[in-house]
Amino acid sequence: MSDTVETRSISYDAARRVLDAAVAAAASAGKSMCIAVTDPSGLPVLTARMDGSPRLSLQIAQDKAYSVASFGGLPTDAWWAMIKDEPALVHGITHTPRLTIFGGGVPLVVAGALVGAIGVSGGSAEEDREIAQAGADAVS
Amino acid sequence: MSDTVETRSISYDAARRVLDAAVAAAASAGKSMCIAVTDPSGLPVLTARMDGSPRLSLQIAQDKAYSVASFGGLPTDAWWAMIKDEPALVHGITHTPRLTIFGGGVPLVVAGALVGAIGVSGGSAEEDREIAQAGADAVS
Amino acid sequence: MSDTVETRSISYDAARRVLDAAVAAAASAGKSMCIAVTDPSGLPVLTARMDGSPRLSLQIAQDKAYSVASFGGLPTDAWWAMIKDEPALVHGITHTPRLTIFGGGVPLVVAGALVGAIGVSGGSAEEDREIAQAGADAVS
Amino acid sequence: MSDTVETRSISYDAARRVLDAAVAAAASAGKSMCIAVTDPSGLPVLTARMDGSPRLSLQIAQDKAYSVASFGGLPTDAWWAMIKDEPALVHGITHTPRLTIFGGGVPLVVAGALVGAIGVSGGSAEEDREIAQAGADAVS
Repeated sequence: MSDTVETRSISYDAARRVLDAAVAAAASAGKSMCIAVTDPSGLPVLTARMDGSPRLSLQIAQDKAYSVASFGGLPTDAWWAMIKDEPALVHGITHTPRLTIFGGGVPLVVAGALVGAIGVSGGSAEEDREIAQAGADAVS
Repeated sequence: MSDTVETRSISYDAARRVLDAAVAAAASAGKSMCIAVTDPSGLPVLTARMDGSPRLSLQIAQDKAYSVASFGGLPTDAWWAMIKDEPALVHGITHTPRLTIFGGGVPLVVAGALVGAIGVSGGSAEEDREIAQAGADAVS
Repeated sequence: MSDTVETRSISYDAARRVLDAAVAAAASAGKSMCIAVTDPSGLPVLTARMDGSPRLSLQIAQDKAYSVASFGGLPTDAWWAMIKDEPALVHGITHTPRLTIFGGGVPLVVAGALVGAIGVSGGSAEEDREIAQAGADAVS
Repeated sequence: MSDTVETRSISYDAARRVLDAAVAAAASAGKSMCIAVTDPSGLPVLTARMDGSPRLSLQIAQDKAYSVASFGGLPTDAWWAMIKDEPALVHGITHTPRLTIFGGGVPLVVAGALVGAIGVSGGSAEEDREIAQAGADAVS
């Protein structure tokens, strides 16, 4: 029985590659997004607000990444299918502070380990998810 | 008519038996849970986050125990049946800060008195409820 | 240049030894304390409120452990010497939310690595520090 | 008399030059810092947490930049001289939420206009100020 548990966190340099890939994907799509890259505890390593993106989205992007990191790496767009047939969860767990249950939060995985998360907000949930995935694809 | 109201609260030693029983039940089921044991005011006596449990669940576990303790000992899984046919409650009371309306919060009763509550989060609502009940069964 | 940074966190079992050692030391000294054991991010692994301890102390204990964990392992009783000759810090940084600058927060170190922190509150700053150190001594 | 007031905000691209310059200066000095670049309203355009920097510093960096941006561009290290002889301010205004009165917050000025601010935290107040200034010097 060990006294410690090992975790690996994304480095600043890798987080920056993730952010750059997401910003580039957003720019290619003609979108202005807010983007957050967090460590496995959900604390930001980098946050960014592109010119013209909605101010409201800066916190949502952080909440999406936090939701992924603090719930085992589950992408935020997977929540609805899990809860939609349980009304007590639909009307209950959705109020959990910071928990975000729509697309745009994606895990960052390196060598099979959850090392952080990326959250994107500013477009539709599906657009947000695509940009976040483009960021996540920058590490592996 | 007395000037005081007596309350009985679970002791630290008994809260610990409750926590240990819940942790053991979770481990037996192969689950990693967050667990909170509170006094009748809903303030934690003990909180625990098992290795690998979702960070998000630590607050939810506390909120479940708080919901039970601060509403007369009603288990959290009893809320939905009570409110489901009143849309104003479904869409209204569910936003009450910390109120949790799905399973995993269970009262702690000693000699017929509500002495605290246990909240568990990390699995399905039903799994959470079973682990919480295993904890609650450690006192009577 | 690696894409990840390794961190080690105290395990639940070890955190429990730390808590037990602190509770035993407090009981030996005839003191009732609130105690928090956190991981390196400052999130609690275990919190405890002994019978008769001040309710106010539960948050202070968590804030002390958070202060240590989120500032490189610096014990909370080391802050005053660092800032006492800089009035802008004495009157400025002391207002930082959760930052606690008096004794009772101690790092948890295993094999030379900062794996978490313990915070104790309920007595004098020096009593709190001694109980916290007794907890920290349970791992090495 | 116009119905509108024009403000100019630092662009994402320029904010990034500011951040990169600050990160490079910190790395040259062998320091790990948290850095925030905000617009004139104090809302972050970019925040960064370098590997090994204190988690506590992420909010302080943002608060420093916010303090500068939301108070006319006054560097945070200018506050103490302004208030030190007025005890009511020393003990009063220093509690203002987010207001930071020690070094590390510096205005971003382009063509004579305040377009944002940079806040740095993780070292001494003087180290923080130097890194922040290195960032600010990347625009003019």
